[in-house]
Amino acid sequence: MSNPVLVELTRGSLTESLHRGAIAVSDAKGNFRVSLGDVAKPIFPRSALKPVQAVPLIECGAAEAFGLSDEEVALACASHSGEPMHTSRIEAWQKRIGCSVSDLACGPHRPVHEPTATAMIERREKPTPLHNNCSGKHTGFMTLSRQLGAAVAGYQLIDHPAQQAVERTLKEMAGLSGELPYGVDGCTVPNFAIPLSALARAMAQIADPRGQAPPRAAASRRIVRAMIAHPDLVAGSGRACTLLMRDNPNIAVKTGAEGVYIAILPELGLGCALKIDDGATRAAETAIAALLIALGAVRDDGAAASLARANVLNTRGVAIGQRRAAFKLPA
Amino acid sequence: MSNPVLVELTRGSLTESLHRGAIAVSDAKGNFRVSLGDVAKPIFPRSALKPVQAVPLIECGAAEAFGLSDEEVALACASHSGEPMHTSRIEAWQKRIGCSVSDLACGPHRPVHEPTATAMIERREKPTPLHNNCSGKHTGFMTLSRQLGAAVAGYQLIDHPAQQAVERTLKEMAGLSGELPYGVDGCTVPNFAIPLSALARAMAQIADPRGQAPPRAAASRRIVRAMIAHPDLVAGSGRACTLLMRDNPNIAVKTGAEGVYIAILPELGLGCALKIDDGATRAAETAIAALLIALGAVRDDGAAASLARANVLNTRGVAIGQRRAAFKLPA
Repeated sequence: MSNPVLVELTRGSLTESLHRGAIAVSDAKGNFRVSLGDVAKPIFPRSALKPVQAVPLIECGAAEAFGLSDEEVALACASHSGEPMHTSRIEAWQKRIGCSVSDLACGPHRPVHEPTATAMIERREKPTPLHNNCSGKHTGFMTLSRQLGAAVAGYQLIDHPAQQAVERTLKEMAGLSGELPYGVDGCTVPNFAIPLSALARAMAQIADPRGQAPPRAAASRRIVRAMIAHPDLVAGSGRACTLLMRDNPNIAVKTGAEGVYIAILPELGLGCALKIDDGATRAAETAIAALLIALGAVRDDGAAASLARANVLNTRGVAIGQRRAAFKLPA
Repeated sequence: MSNPVLVELTRGSLTESLHRGAIAVSDAKGNFRVSLGDVAKPIFPRSALKPVQAVPLIECGAAEAFGLSDEEVALACASHSGEPMHTSRIEAWQKRIGCSVSDLACGPHRPVHEPTATAMIERREKPTPLHNNCSGKHTGFMTLSRQLGAAVAGYQLIDHPAQQAVERTLKEMAGLSGELPYGVDGCTVPNFAIPLSALARAMAQIADPRGQAPPRAAASRRIVRAMIAHPDLVAGSGRACTLLMRDNPNIAVKTGAEGVYIAILPELGLGCALKIDDGATRAAETAIAALLIALGAVRDDGAAASLARANVLNTRGVAIGQRRAAFKLPA
């Protein structure tokens, strides 16, 4: 049994490539609004897990103790593009908690933001772990470690109190029990494998925290507020997450590597999660935009419309095909 | 009916992403050696068509008239990386036929070869159409136009004698009749949609040209010889095509955008073609390597083995999963 086709690319009058995947939309109690494809199979949420990974940071009082701004909370939830607006803020935050770039467990990579990467080459400057798109999340873990009285060194290891707090929180919010299988993310931190349905439910808990204990409910509300207030910090210039949230300041969305996307919809009290089988980002962006339009959660023009249906251009800028969503929600 | 899974990516103990697709291996008469998935559906071969697109260049006498070297024939079949070894040779070739970069219909893009792209940024130099990975193929069309007494301007249009010669040649070699559907490739040239089975057959005609008229048989032999002699020119430093051919100087292979790969196997008299449904290059490279190993066409160590099964590393260089072929050939 294969998952349905969610996105297709055309060239001339033919379909050239297609992307299969699964979609889950849930309320905070785990009732499905949408279930398309295999939503029970464990998937790695990758960076789409970040809003949940940020919950303990706020819930346990670290954010308050260290005076975290909403900008910093947004950066804890970010896969940022390594622009100066990101790295300068993370550097200042690290300084405030007595840490620095050398405490980051993540490795360096070229900034996602091309003009920043180009400017660095022109200055003959090498990327550092600060440019890693996850350096805000890591600084969140460092802050959490400080609050828990744990060593900062080793914050990325599965047995560290910071990761144990994340696993416990995820299980509670996703409605799961037992030990979660995990893999190591690109940034060296554990990433827990959970069913897509459970990921959607965890996001719905953030969207609609009324059933949670007050500290977690407050953490959920703060995460949504911070992401919505700072769409530029959650991703970066020209990125899909940023464009979708800037156009629709009533939702929070987050991409994850290997074709994952989540959305947090406070007004509808819903959480969305999707995974493209083959891991393609282009398809995840197309599918989440089409899903949000279909749910009535976003404006059906602007960023969402451009992502859900776009021309494919050749190297002379001429449209030679389309990339478009290919699914309909069950009535 | 979906195509079988050809490639999977693991993380920890779980499969994270998977790639479906189809594989055809044929002899020159169109008898299948392998048929996996839907090989009858038309696909765009994209740059994997280049060996066939180069046939008229040689068959009609242009290569001889303009004294084309094997290096230039290899470049006509290339998706090159825009390294100086590529662009300098293409520039010299254009000069010899009274053309220049301004005659290229393809648009500019950043060189595929990262160190070349970085060096250009450091010199504040912008890419030109010469850096387009298809500029060798285009220079081949310009040379063919000269030989046919046709205008060079417009060589990329479907009604131009150069493209008409390609369509006629492809139909004959692929065993097809009637008008072929086509789309416009990234480089602005028509790309004809044909079944994967027909693409494999056309490549088998190049591998085993005994049934062809002497000029085409000679063209086929020259194309194979040139590609095998110059693996660096067909792709570039570190690229899969180059590594596979350098390790195995008895085969010619060629990648195409959106997950296509072909192989020309003169010793076995076979042509191979595969297409990954979702268009992923990482999967096409993995699958072609595993296919060639399974056919006994390449050494089962070195480049092929590394492509067929590779560790996935995190940003600290630690292996956190695998990318590997997931199909077995029918016995």
